[in-house]
Order: sequence, then structure tokens, then C-alpha cells
Amino acid sequence: MFIDTQKARCFCEMVFKAYGFSADESKIITDVLLMADLYGIESHGIHRLVRYHEEITSNQVCVNAKVETVHETPISACLEANKAMGQLVGVYAMNMAIEKAKKSGCGMITVRNSNHYGIASYYTELASAQDLIGVSMTNTEAICVPTFGSQAMTGTNAQALAMPADPFTFSYDASTTVVPRGKLEVYRKNGQPLPDNWALDANGNPCNDAAVVVDNIIAKAGGGIAPLGGLGMLHGGHKGYGLSIIVDMFSAVISSGLTSNHVNRKPGSTGICHYFMAIDYGIFGDKTSIRNGMSKFLQEIRDSRKAEGHSRIYTHGEKESELKAQRENGQIPINEKTLEEMKNIAAKLKISAEPLIAV
Amino acid sequence: MFIDTQKARCFCEMVFKAYGFSADESKIITDVLLMADLYGIESHGIHRLVRYHEEITSNQVCVNAKVETVHETPISACLEANKAMGQLVGVYAMNMAIEKAKKSGCGMITVRNSNHYGIASYYTELASAQDLIGVSMTNTEAICVPTFGSQAMTGTNAQALAMPADPFTFSYDASTTVVPRGKLEVYRKNGQPLPDNWALDANGNPCNDAAVVVDNIIAKAGGGIAPLGGLGMLHGGHKGYGLSIIVDMFSAVISSGLTSNHVNRKPGSTGICHYFMAIDYGIFGDKTSIRNGMSKFLQEIRDSRKAEGHSRIYTHGEKESELKAQRENGQIPINEKTLEEMKNIAAKLKISAEPLIAV
Repeated sequence: MFIDTQKARCFCEMVFKAYGFSADESKIITDVLLMADLYGIESHGIHRLVRYHEEITSNQVCVNAKVETVHETPISACLEANKAMGQLVGVYAMNMAIEKAKKSGCGMITVRNSNHYGIASYYTELASAQDLIGVSMTNTEAICVPTFGSQAMTGTNAQALAMPADPFTFSYDASTTVVPRGKLEVYRKNGQPLPDNWALDANGNPCNDAAVVVDNIIAKAGGGIAPLGGLGMLHGGHKGYGLSIIVDMFSAVISSGLTSNHVNRKPGSTGICHYFMAIDYGIFGDKTSIRNGMSKFLQEIRDSRKAEGHSRIYTHGEKESELKAQRENGQIPINEKTLEEMKNIAAKLKISAEPLIAV
Repeated sequence: MFIDTQKARCFCEMVFKAYGFSADESKIITDVLLMADLYGIESHGIHRLVRYHEEITSNQVCVNAKVETVHETPISACLEANKAMGQLVGVYAMNMAIEKAKKSGCGMITVRNSNHYGIASYYTELASAQDLIGVSMTNTEAICVPTFGSQAMTGTNAQALAMPADPFTFSYDASTTVVPRGKLEVYRKNGQPLPDNWALDANGNPCNDAAVVVDNIIAKAGGGIAPLGGLGMLHGGHKGYGLSIIVDMFSAVISSGLTSNHVNRKPGSTGICHYFMAIDYGIFGDKTSIRNGMSKFLQEIRDSRKAEGHSRIYTHGEKESELKAQRENGQIPINEKTLEEMKNIAAKLKISAEPLIAV
């Protein structure tokens, strides 16, 4: 099932205005949300509207929150988000990083007490669009079990980096777990056993039963997802585990906020933390020559010999950029349940569900 | 077999002085080299002396090279290493980053045309010892095959980060491949099949034969090691592949140096590139409180519930720090072949092999 991209945009903006966000704010939140659908990352797109609805109506997300600067230098800031909508916090903070990078060469912003901010690459690409390197990370509720542990202590903890290049910006955006939670839910729905090295039961033993793992996660009963690199150390699971700590360090520790193991533990706020960085790579030399160097390296990779049975090597951001070009003035996929849920939200908010006609 | 740590130190310093390095330079190179042995990372310790011997005597490493600053701002620099010894370049560049961080909050140094610099955590811990966050990355000769490729395009491309904490500094140091090349060589020596998801043959198909993979790597005949996350995308191999590009971006692209796929391709120089960063985390708030926050988070992880059959969860740098305390005034392990090779070097350089008595 598909819906028209422009109509989905209209609908989402109406929804956010109905909560009390300004027209500009509603535009920003919608843009972040729909970028996920345009990029093919449905888990972070309009599918999330239901969850945002719950968070906004239960005041975990504060519509009128103002972001405060609690510490600042020419190259840095620490922000208290006061439970503001994550997308608004993200755009505000990355713009601050960009401004500092343009004036001082780099800007590093750490943020506490925010909320889910959507796809991390939305923010890094704000920087790359201004010919800067962009970095962003965010912690989340703990779901990732440390090597030799049985209890989730870090989140999916995404890391994103964008660097301008031609014809495709290099745009890396990935969780530091072997897979995000959504993947487990798909396996559960399809009744498929999980691949080895993905997940652990409540005692920290390898587990291929998606239902067991997901139920334990929901009940916070122990176990969870393996870090990137899998279980134990054989395939480098201790590396993914370390990367997830690094994300918490930049987002939660240096902002004096809540680390993943404390996120979503008290009613009334999630406590999610983020990190943003923009670097003007002109502080290392001639920008044109550096940008050409990046383009050349990525092209050499794309042009390198393919594995048997494969005809293409992608660099990060390439697939997403192609999909976006195709969907932007066309349609985005939507599943029946999501569409139903969106209609329910429309009814609750007393706004028209008319744009939501599946095509 | 073991040798006395202090005697090993004396011997290495004599070796480097024999090549023409000053007493101070020889001390620095030896300290980096032996730190690997103290940390239990034998692949990067005195075992490497043979390779350094070849590189120095063949002039790939220039004993009298001077590092030049080709671009500089208060928070950054790009250095041309002129084929200097990697350890000397690393200490010089990280000290420059530290100085900039103390003055301006952060320092980012990119370096081209250097050589193998030993363990990345040596440099990040120079920063953490000064109560700063330290970051370092280095590219290497290509050995890692991109997702869906059959030709190595990036190196083992280590990433390291150290952040001060008590009682253990958090010190992450890991390649962005599933394993380093040395692991394959161990499997080959033992005649064991490689675990799945580690390596590829020349056609880009999964390969469990260590001899085939290592021979292909040596002959640059195709195939190589999988990125962190393994082959294909099922376990997140595209993530490790992206991380390895990021290492090349920071070390080779922004320094206008050689990316991994061009490293070690011409006689006379390796062209290895590095990146160093120091951040004074006081630019985000009160340092004592942030440091305590990091210590608390790491302690919560170490204290969290263990997997069945495991009694301890380590945070990164903990094992190494314990091993160092034990070996520093004691002994380091050495294998017979390495000892023999060191004696050969001593004979060639006409220095005494007397310190090299196995105990």
C-alpha cells in the first residue's frame, strides 16, 4: 500500500499543529519524519506517529518546551532540552553546531533530557548540505547487552556521519547493535527463528526465539540484542559494545544527562540524550581538493571488483539518495495497520483523514 | 617463554639508537612498542621489530625525517610526516592536539605520509592522562573487502578513544574489520578452519581456509577480511564497512594523503595516514562531575547481571590496565621465533643480545 508523499506531508503537519506546535515547528518535525520514509527506513517514519502521539499526549514530550543553553564556548555547548520534541531539538542543536563550525572551524553540541529524534542522518546531512562534515549520535532506552552480560545496559545508540562528496554525499547512519529492535519484531511476526549471534535470553544465553527476546525486552526481564559483532568476542562483539558506550559518553555523560540504562525508567520523561558535531574540513586544507579526494575514494570503492553474484557495491547514503529522488514527488509505502492508526489519531485530534487515501 | 621487561626496554632502545635515532626518540619508539606487550597485544609489540627493521633499512621509514605542518588553525593542523617513524609522528601529533585542546577546547590533527604507529590507544591515553578525551585512527594497507565486493579497499583501520574515569580509564581500541590479519595467521598455523563470516576468497565468496585467504592477501590476489559485522548485511557487515571508510576519511582524505587502497603500493614509502583529536570535556560543563558520571556509568555496566557461565563484565581498557600493572616490573611473553629474529637483528646491528635471555 502506498500514500501520496505530499498528502502525507500535509496530514502530518496538520497533526503536529493540532498538538499545539507552530506551523514552522510542524513543518520541521514532519520533514524529519518523512525523510525516513523517503530513505526507506520505515521504522523511523510515519509509522512512529502513534508513538509520538502517546508521548505528546502523556506529556513525555512538552509541546511548549524551550531548549536552554547551560554551558557554552565558541566551539561547544551543552543544552538542556526540557523534554522538547526530539526533532526540534535536533535541528536547533545541529544548526548551532553549524554556526560554530562556520565561525570557529568546529562546533560540538551535547544535549540532555530530549526525546526520540528520528533518523540521525537527517541532522548530519544538514551539515553536509552546508559543505561541512556532520556527526550525530543518540542514546535510547537500553536494549543492548554488554559482552558477557545478561542485562541490557546501552541503547541501539546510533552513530551517523556525513561528508560531502560527488555525486553522492557519504552518509553513514547505523545502530551500534547487530540489528535494531524492529528487525526482531519482523522475525517474530513471520514466525522465523532469529539468525545466530543476534540476541540473548534473560540468562544471557544465545537465543533464536524472537518472541522470547521481544517479550523480555518489553517486560525489562533481561537479555536483549547483541552489540554489532555479535555475542561473545569471536566476531568482535566487544567492539560494538565499546561503540555503544562511546555513543552514551558523547550524548549522555558529557551532557550530564541520563545514560541508556536510565532512559525511560521514570514516568513523565524519557531523558534521551544526543550529540551533534559539525566540522569545516577547510581547517585541514583546500576544500575543493579534499572534497574531490573523498569523491575519488568512494568512486574507487564503487568501481572495485564485485563478489560473485553481485553487480553493485554501494557507498553509504547512495541507496537512500536514489530512493528519495524516486519517492519525493511520488508515493511512500505504508502498511495497513499504520494507516488505520493514523486515521484513529485524526479522529482523536478532530482533523481530516482525507489525505490518507491509499493508492 | 618470557623476557624481563626492563631488559627488553634496554635492548629496543639500543636497537633504535643503532639506526640513528636520538636517545629520546629511541625511548619514545620503545615505549609505544612495549606498551603493546604490557597490554597483551603481542601482534603490535616487540614482535614487530623485524618488520620495523626491514622498513628502516630499506628507507621506507626515514630516520632523519622532519614532520612539517602544511596547514594550521587554533584547533587543527594537517601534517606531512615525510616518511618519519610512525611512533614519533604519533606522539608529536597527539601532543599538538593536546596543546590545542588546552588552549582552545579541542585539537584535531590529520597526518599523511607516515608509517605504522603501533597501538592507537598509546596516543589516546596520552590525552586521557592529561584529563582530556583522546581519539585516534589510522589507515593501513587494504585488507578489508567492502560489502558485496571481492577486492580489499580499506585497511584494518583502527579506531581508538580514551576518556578519563576512575578506577579505570575507558580506553577503546579496535580495528573496523571482524578480526585483524594476525588472527588468520594463528588459525593457519594451527591448521584450524576459520569461523564463518570472517573472510572471503578471491571471488568474494565466504572462505574458511586460512591458508587460501592469507596467501591471497600476500599476493594481493583478491578477497580478504570481512568488515566488523561480517559478510553481507545480515549481521551488519555494511556497518563495519562504513566505519572503515570513516577512518580513511579522517586520516587520509582530509590530510590529502593516500587512502588504504593506495597504501603500500609503491616501493620506497607506505603512505600510511593517521588522525588525532583531543577534547577538553570541560567545554561541556564541570569536569569533576562529568568524570564522575563516566566512572558511575562504567561501574554500573561492570556491576550489571552476568551471562550464565561468566563472572565478570569488563569495560574497555580494564584488562589491559591490569595486565600492565602485572608485567611492567616483571616479564613479557615472547615466542621463540621472535627471540631468534631479535638476536639476528642484534648481530646485524652489532649490538649486544645479552638482555635477551629468556626466563
